[in-house]
Amino acid sequence: MIRAGIVGGTGYTGVELLRILALHQEVDVAVVTSRADAGVRVDAVYPSLRGYVDAVFTAPDVEALAACDVVFFATPNGTAMLMAEQLLARGVKVIDLSADFRLQDAKEWSQWYGMEHACPDLIGEAVYGLPEVNREGIKTARLIACPGCYPTSVQLGFLPLLEQGLIDADHLIADVKSGVSGAGRKAELATLMSECGESFKAYAVPGHRHLPEIRQGLHAATGKPVGLTFVPHLTPMIRGIHATLYGRLQADVQDLQALYEQRYRNEVFVDVLPNGAHADTRSVRGSNRCQIAIHQPQGGNTVVVLSVIDNLVKGASGQAVQNMNLMFGLEEDLGLRTVALYP
Amino acid sequence: MIRAGIVGGTGYTGVELLRILALHQEVDVAVVTSRADAGVRVDAVYPSLRGYVDAVFTAPDVEALAACDVVFFATPNGTAMLMAEQLLARGVKVIDLSADFRLQDAKEWSQWYGMEHACPDLIGEAVYGLPEVNREGIKTARLIACPGCYPTSVQLGFLPLLEQGLIDADHLIADVKSGVSGAGRKAELATLMSECGESFKAYAVPGHRHLPEIRQGLHAATGKPVGLTFVPHLTPMIRGIHATLYGRLQADVQDLQALYEQRYRNEVFVDVLPNGAHADTRSVRGSNRCQIAIHQPQGGNTVVVLSVIDNLVKGASGQAVQNMNLMFGLEEDLGLRTVALYP
Amino acid sequence: MIRAGIVGGTGYTGVELLRILALHQEVDVAVVTSRADAGVRVDAVYPSLRGYVDAVFTAPDVEALAACDVVFFATPNGTAMLMAEQLLARGVKVIDLSADFRLQDAKEWSQWYGMEHACPDLIGEAVYGLPEVNREGIKTARLIACPGCYPTSVQLGFLPLLEQGLIDADHLIADVKSGVSGAGRKAELATLMSECGESFKAYAVPGHRHLPEIRQGLHAATGKPVGLTFVPHLTPMIRGIHATLYGRLQADVQDLQALYEQRYRNEVFVDVLPNGAHADTRSVRGSNRCQIAIHQPQGGNTVVVLSVIDNLVKGASGQAVQNMNLMFGLEEDLGLRTVALYP
Amino acid sequence: MIRAGIVGGTGYTGVELLRILALHQEVDVAVVTSRADAGVRVDAVYPSLRGYVDAVFTAPDVEALAACDVVFFATPNGTAMLMAEQLLARGVKVIDLSADFRLQDAKEWSQWYGMEHACPDLIGEAVYGLPEVNREGIKTARLIACPGCYPTSVQLGFLPLLEQGLIDADHLIADVKSGVSGAGRKAELATLMSECGESFKAYAVPGHRHLPEIRQGLHAATGKPVGLTFVPHLTPMIRGIHATLYGRLQADVQDLQALYEQRYRNEVFVDVLPNGAHADTRSVRGSNRCQIAIHQPQGGNTVVVLSVIDNLVKGASGQAVQNMNLMFGLEEDLGLRTVALYP
Repeated sequence: MIRAGIVGGTGYTGVELLRILALHQEVDVAVVTSRADAGVRVDAVYPSLRGYVDAVFTAPDVEALAACDVVFFATPNGTAMLMAEQLLARGVKVIDLSADFRLQDAKEWSQWYGMEHACPDLIGEAVYGLPEVNREGIKTARLIACPGCYPTSVQLGFLPLLEQGLIDADHLIADVKSGVSGAGRKAELATLMSECGESFKAYAVPGHRHLPEIRQGLHAATGKPVGLTFVPHLTPMIRGIHATLYGRLQADVQDLQALYEQRYRNEVFVDVLPNGAHADTRSVRGSNRCQIAIHQPQGGNTVVVLSVIDNLVKGASGQAVQNMNLMFGLEEDLGLRTVALYP
Repeated sequence: MIRAGIVGGTGYTGVELLRILALHQEVDVAVVTSRADAGVRVDAVYPSLRGYVDAVFTAPDVEALAACDVVFFATPNGTAMLMAEQLLARGVKVIDLSADFRLQDAKEWSQWYGMEHACPDLIGEAVYGLPEVNREGIKTARLIACPGCYPTSVQLGFLPLLEQGLIDADHLIADVKSGVSGAGRKAELATLMSECGESFKAYAVPGHRHLPEIRQGLHAATGKPVGLTFVPHLTPMIRGIHATLYGRLQADVQDLQALYEQRYRNEVFVDVLPNGAHADTRSVRGSNRCQIAIHQPQGGNTVVVLSVIDNLVKGASGQAVQNMNLMFGLEEDLGLRTVALYP
Repeated sequence: MIRAGIVGGTGYTGVELLRILALHQEVDVAVVTSRADAGVRVDAVYPSLRGYVDAVFTAPDVEALAACDVVFFATPNGTAMLMAEQLLARGVKVIDLSADFRLQDAKEWSQWYGMEHACPDLIGEAVYGLPEVNREGIKTARLIACPGCYPTSVQLGFLPLLEQGLIDADHLIADVKSGVSGAGRKAELATLMSECGESFKAYAVPGHRHLPEIRQGLHAATGKPVGLTFVPHLTPMIRGIHATLYGRLQADVQDLQALYEQRYRNEVFVDVLPNGAHADTRSVRGSNRCQIAIHQPQGGNTVVVLSVIDNLVKGASGQAVQNMNLMFGLEEDLGLRTVALYP
Repeated sequence: MIRAGIVGGTGYTGVELLRILALHQEVDVAVVTSRADAGVRVDAVYPSLRGYVDAVFTAPDVEALAACDVVFFATPNGTAMLMAEQLLARGVKVIDLSADFRLQDAKEWSQWYGMEHACPDLIGEAVYGLPEVNREGIKTARLIACPGCYPTSVQLGFLPLLEQGLIDADHLIADVKSGVSGAGRKAELATLMSECGESFKAYAVPGHRHLPEIRQGLHAATGKPVGLTFVPHLTPMIRGIHATLYGRLQADVQDLQALYEQRYRNEVFVDVLPNGAHADTRSVRGSNRCQIAIHQPQGGNTVVVLSVIDNLVKGASGQAVQNMNLMFGLEEDLGLRTVALYP
């Protein structure tokens, strides 16, 4: 059994890790930390876990975590970078669900995240945990930077086109809609149901932290810097991300549908929908799947890609477990074979 | 492997059966019928099932169903009673999720359901599929009448009090709130999101079909006819039932909490919450669990029981699979060990 | 023109007062206070008010408020009682939307609200602002204690029965469901959309602060102390309260429908629905109306009353304006003639 | 008083017309037709209108409608074109909220709407009822084609840029999100709360009927055919449209904010938000206002316009009344001075 630790077990990505790992046959969750709830039973905070998780929140403690085989950071940005080095030195694998190791450029990271990076030397070692791109690197990595939720949906949607150089990479548009759980489990006005229910809005149009992360990934795919307009929106639902992606075709493409099917034919968690379909976030809710549909409206030269994920699963905790499976030589979908909850 | 058939696979209880059975290690879904969608792949209608269900809807056909070990009826009322006899005669076990065999009195059934019963002789043989009451009968039954969603939540909430004769059975009140999926997957004005979203209402206050079913179950528990006021409400959410139950204590009760814990201590799917807790439908969403909390407000003689289930799981398809497990000698929770989807 | 001040203009009852008063032809909103937002334009916080409210939030200041004809307190509990005396002394009428003056017993108030009352001498003078009960007293009052949202819906629903002594007042049950805006505009975990959306729960079953307020009002109606079980529930919608009220008939009642129609025939804001109807919160959303339906299920002796209001209008700010109209000799429904927003 | 008739009073645009006109001081609603509900009181179907609308649905009858000064068609497509000619001949002004007269090209209309146009001769006379573009034409028109909901939000958002030739008109993108009431009050699977609640999806990506309408309007603004990719999305809320518009700047623009403020400075129903703001559908819910925000992310050459309306008000019935006011020489905002319902 793999001994796992979770730092920051009270946020939504933390409790989602617990939901998944509680039923994972090769994992034993040994430590779950929470500064605020130290000493409290996990299932007292989350009654859904009664009978499945028999643990008590503890204050974060390197010694206890060092006894684990793997530690997940489900923490706010800026925490993992303070503890990762110590854990790695003790032979613990680290999977960071926060943004601390996502950007390869420490200076750019500082600009977007508003703080100095605490261990810039580790950035180079971190593997960006998008298995559909970096599977081999993940298998041997000690430190994984789990992709953000928006970046997962946007990259999986754009990759086949960019890898083949089929669209104008200077003028990409990603219009993305997220459920409110993406904002995390923090007491904030903006995500009160009275504020965000029955309403829809864009936010952070001048610049969102996931912009440089997406650009970095798309740059890698296409081999040159990309021009991207990224507009995130807050949607009155709890789970789900729907990316609507626009690119201008610059080559004569025979069959976009076949291109996508070919690119993802061996991917257990990327599902290319049939020709003409529309993706729907409900069909991936609670699952680790990304579903993608491709359109070329009115036969024009604009391609429209629809890419949906559950932000807490493929966009966070499920993808983290997928990475863990790869790192420990397990089947990639172990513990992740679930059907979306519909309706 | 158990060969299972599902009649009426396009409704919410049908697709929920598919979600559960697709991952059930002892079951192979051999037949899924749908008159309207015959010839269509199941996963074309439900993209959430892509990769998990490799079946095509067929028109209902007794021969094909007779080759199954068990057939689930996830049909509107009035269908199972037309086919059950033939299937039983062919050695097929039948689990009916509709109301056809729930009432022991055929005449009362006709009054509430507005049609003659097609096979009143079978009613006596049908076992009411509430395992927490009828476990032994279920194990040997050929024909199961799965309880309704409201009746499941109300009976599990009231049973400990009534079995011990602790409350006045003449004046029970069940104020119950259901998510809209309880109304089924039918194109109807009343359950359009524009009609039932952001709104709350009671309905069928003069009399709801689940009233006689609940009365019958409570009668059996307490040994005499009960007086029950049952008010169902439509709640702007998709899944979940919350029963708020009121009874007047007629005896000096030492410890209601202990009473409930004792009654359900061996029940894998009934979870008595700690003293002082409030039940929340989110904590059972997608799971087969009933969570119960007991209160005695202001120390008065009115007991308030809060009982929550997911109407499509413990209130329908999950309970049906729980019954199937019992009928086939499997572990009662096989295929049903899932954690609720929170948030 | 009446010069009005609003203390606490940033909460939901404050902004709802602004919405109503902005279009009230006899009122000029002269002062809107907010400690947190002092110096900020009101319409910068609430873009819905652009073009309708040309004001800037100011820090609360008695001098500025004393220049008003009427001051509304849309503040947390404990604020109005600190300022009311000074304002009254300056000839300003005070309408308190918080709970400070609702309970006639200062000691009971302290127990439920967890603080000493700052001006118990004023309690006796305060008129409970339920016009359907205290219209004449309101007209001449200097200080109004606006009823709570739950108490408004429950009292209007029970009054006709209790005033006539038709039900057993020792065993009343009020099962009440509220939209989440009733919890106010505060950054809190419990009312995040991810927490309360798609879920339903009871809360405060052991005792809610509105319990003594309701008891006091029902006591007054029936002339003796009442026994009431009050269970509030959090409903996944923004606006609306639905009270489901249960009472046991103790007399032979000829016609409950006629009783209610008679009781409220002159009430512009209480609408008794036709026989057999069910009330729906959507039909009063945004309006100052209470709609009521009466049922006697299965012809038994339990009467079920359904009473719906918009918690922010008839349950708070609309009722406050209704009180103001009465205090200033205006038509009772001035500024309140609006049709509910459906769908 | 203007005598008004409403054909198709039971749909959402019909009942929204009734909500607005019930309080319009210059209008008397004389006729409300509904084939299905003929003979039924309007307020029996819509309890929100009790006390405000004292009318009975009648079967559509040209004689009765001909006695009106103005007739609104709140009907499915294909109805107004059958009756408009007769009414115009009798001197009745006609305001069509359906699509019958929106496209100037009858052949294109037939292709998109799947039927022959019944009175192509009238198309030329119909004035497209977007007052911000065609105010003078509207004032003298006999027949108004009210814009669709999507087209209203998209055109108002793009107009200032296109009228000045500032963006590349060959590659416009409109990513638009609509609440479910836009689908109308029809019993359909797709808009059941269980289907569209807690989910998000694009639809009609290959081609939506509003595409030619938007193209026609933008063509008129910029003087040449435009290239537009239009992707509509279904959003889990009831009311509201949020258009996110993308254009590539082709000129050096000094100040987009000033451009928009200048263009709409005399428009009572178009509100340009302050620099840096984000528009939110909740701030226009129930109001006839379009709120617009302009962004140029990261200082690049892509302009992003956020444009929000209430699809049933500015996107349908409110705009229809705005047109009526203009046609009858009334103040443009008479009956439409309402503040959005927040929260």
